[in-house]
Amino acid sequence: MGTYLDRIRPEVRRSSGYSLDRPHAQVKIDQNESPYDLPLEVKQQIWDRVRDRQWSRYPELIPARLHEKLARLAGWKPDGILLGNGSNELILALLLAVVERGVRVVIPEPTFLLYRLLVEVLGGDVLPVPLRSDLSYDGEAILKTAVERDGALVVVCSPNNPTGGILAPDALEQVVRGCPGIVVLDEAYFEFAGMSGTSLLPRFENLVIFRTFSKAMSMAGMRIGYCLGHPALVAEMAKTKLPFNLNLFCLAAADVVLERPELLERRVRDIVSERERVSSALKRIPGVTVYPSYANFLLFETVHPPATVYQGLLSRGVLVRDVSRHHLLARALRASVGTPAENDQFLTALKSFLERA
Amino acid sequence: MGTYLDRIRPEVRRSSGYSLDRPHAQVKIDQNESPYDLPLEVKQQIWDRVRDRQWSRYPELIPARLHEKLARLAGWKPDGILLGNGSNELILALLLAVVERGVRVVIPEPTFLLYRLLVEVLGGDVLPVPLRSDLSYDGEAILKTAVERDGALVVVCSPNNPTGGILAPDALEQVVRGCPGIVVLDEAYFEFAGMSGTSLLPRFENLVIFRTFSKAMSMAGMRIGYCLGHPALVAEMAKTKLPFNLNLFCLAAADVVLERPELLERRVRDIVSERERVSSALKRIPGVTVYPSYANFLLFETVHPPATVYQGLLSRGVLVRDVSRHHLLARALRASVGTPAENDQFLTALKSFLERA
Repeated sequence: MGTYLDRIRPEVRRSSGYSLDRPHAQVKIDQNESPYDLPLEVKQQIWDRVRDRQWSRYPELIPARLHEKLARLAGWKPDGILLGNGSNELILALLLAVVERGVRVVIPEPTFLLYRLLVEVLGGDVLPVPLRSDLSYDGEAILKTAVERDGALVVVCSPNNPTGGILAPDALEQVVRGCPGIVVLDEAYFEFAGMSGTSLLPRFENLVIFRTFSKAMSMAGMRIGYCLGHPALVAEMAKTKLPFNLNLFCLAAADVVLERPELLERRVRDIVSERERVSSALKRIPGVTVYPSYANFLLFETVHPPATVYQGLLSRGVLVRDVSRHHLLARALRASVGTPAENDQFLTALKSFLERA
Repeated sequence: MGTYLDRIRPEVRRSSGYSLDRPHAQVKIDQNESPYDLPLEVKQQIWDRVRDRQWSRYPELIPARLHEKLARLAGWKPDGILLGNGSNELILALLLAVVERGVRVVIPEPTFLLYRLLVEVLGGDVLPVPLRSDLSYDGEAILKTAVERDGALVVVCSPNNPTGGILAPDALEQVVRGCPGIVVLDEAYFEFAGMSGTSLLPRFENLVIFRTFSKAMSMAGMRIGYCLGHPALVAEMAKTKLPFNLNLFCLAAADVVLERPELLERRVRDIVSERERVSSALKRIPGVTVYPSYANFLLFETVHPPATVYQGLLSRGVLVRDVSRHHLLARALRASVGTPAENDQFLTALKSFLERA
C-alpha cells in the first residue's frame, strides 16, 4: 500500500535540495555579496516611488519601461529581455522549457551547484566536463562533449563560481558557434571581469545570458535577475516563468538603481582593487595557494582540510565558504571580497589559524 | 536542419502562456484585488524595518519567525509551512514535484487557468471534471474521476475563481479521504467565505492548502503566498522551490501585516457586505443572472455576448473580466467587489449598457 509521498517523482525524493549553513559571524564573506549596501539616499528614492503606489494591486505583467532601461544598459533589444525573481528563476524557466527525463545538459564543473540540482530534479542527465587541473575552463572539451553527446543545453558560468576563472572570449565564441543546442552564459559576476558575451548575441540565436542585481549591484536582498537572448527564445522562457514574478518593490528598486550607474562603477573598482590586494597578500602567506579571479571572490587552498580551516576562521569571527565537495577542490575554500577592514580581518584570521594549525 | 528552438519541449512550444489584457480604466475590478490599500502608517512601519537592513545581503534561507507567525494564524505546525513568491510559485513547486509526462491531474473546471497551463507545460494530463450546470462543485464526480483514473493530484479552488462557489466541508472531506493522491485546496479567497479546510490537516497527510496575501490581505503587489501541509510533503516542495524566493521587503511586509489582524478583519467585513449589496442589486436588473459568491467577486451573466458587455463597461470606465472562454461560462463575466463608490459606478455602467444594448 503506497502513501501520498509515492506521488512525488523519484528525482525529487532523491534530491537533497539547496541548503546552506549560515552561522553568525562578524565578517561575512561566504555568499559573494557586495560589502557595500545601497546608500540610504538611494533607498529613500526607491521608497518615495513605492510608498504611494497601491500595494493592493498586482504589479505590471510586463515591465516594459524596465526592459527598455536594461536594453540600453546591455546594448540589446527590449523584447530579448526577461526579468526574474533573481536569475535563479530564469535558470529554472529555461531548464523547465528544455529539460525532461533523458535530456542532456553539459555542465563544466565545479561550478554553481544549482544548475545540477535543478537539472537532476527535472530528470535530465548532467554531462559534467571537468575544469583543467589548474581550474581553468577547457573550451574544447565542453564543445566536444556537447557535439558528441548532443547536449540540448550547455551551462557556462563566467566568471565561474566558485573558481573565479573565465571562459575566454574566443573559446566562448567557439562553444556557442559549435554547440548543437542552447548555450547559457551565467554572467552573475561579469562586472568584476570587465567583459561580457553580449557582443555574440546578434550573431548567435542559441545564446542566452543571465545576469543579476545581487552581486555588483549590491541588491542580493531584493532578488532581481534578467536574461538577454533572442526574442523567440525569451518568448518560450516567458511561458515557463510565472506571471507577476517581480513585486512592486523590486521593480521600483531596479528602476532607480539603473539611473545611478556611477554608484555601481565606483564600487566595482573598489572591489576589484581589493581583490588584487587580498590575492597578493594571500600569495605571500606560506602554504597558501590562491587562484586568479575575475569575480568578487577568491578561491584559495591550504595544506589543511577545508573543514578545519573553515572552523578556524569562524572561531576568529570570519565566515567563508567551504567549497571542497568537488574532488578538484578538495583543499579549497572561497572568500568574498569584503571591505578593506573585513579583508584585513580575514587575512589576520587566516594567518593566526595557520600559525596554530 | 533543426534550430535551437527544437530544443524547447513541445508542450512549451504549444503553450500560449499566461496573458492578460490590462487596459486603463477608472474602476478596475478585473483582478480580484482588494480596493483597500494598506494604510500609509502600516507601509511606513514596513519601511522602518527594511530601511536599515543591508539590501546587499541575501534574505534568510528559511524565514523561521514568519513561519511561526503563520503557524499561529492558521493553527498549524511551523514545519508544515512554506512561503512562496505568490501562491503561484507554490503551485508550481508542487506540480514540479509530482507532474511529468503522463501524470494525471484532476481539475474541476472552470477554475483558475494557471493550474491547467502549468500541468500542460509539464506534460501532465489534465482530467477535467465539469462543475454542475448551476456552477456548483460536484464532489462525487471529482472523487470518482480521481479514483477511477488514479489521479496523482486533485486541484480544488474553494471559493472557486471565477465562479465564487465552494466545495462544501463534507464534500471536501470525502474527496480528501477518498483520493488516491494529493489534494490541493487553493484557499486564495477563504477569508471571504469565513471557512477553511485547515481542520482536515491533522487527519489527512495528503492535503495541502495554498493561501495568499494578494486578496483579503491587500498585498497583490507584494507577491506573498504560503502553503500548509504535512511536513514531509512540504519538505519535498521545498526542494523544487528556489532558494531565496522572497525578498527582504516582502518578508518585512508579511511580518508587519501579520501583527495587524484587525486591519484585515474590518476590510473583509466591508467587502463581504458590499458583495451582498452588489449581488442583490444585480439580481434586480432585468436580464442579469448573478451566482452566489463566497469570494470577493461576483460572476454574472447577461443575454449579450460577454465581449460586448466587457467593451460596453470599459467604454463607461469600468474594467471587469470576460471569463467566457469555458463553455459553461459562455455568457459570463466576473467583477471584483470594489469600494462602495466603485461598485455603484459598475452597477450604473451595467444598467446604462443594458439600456442601450
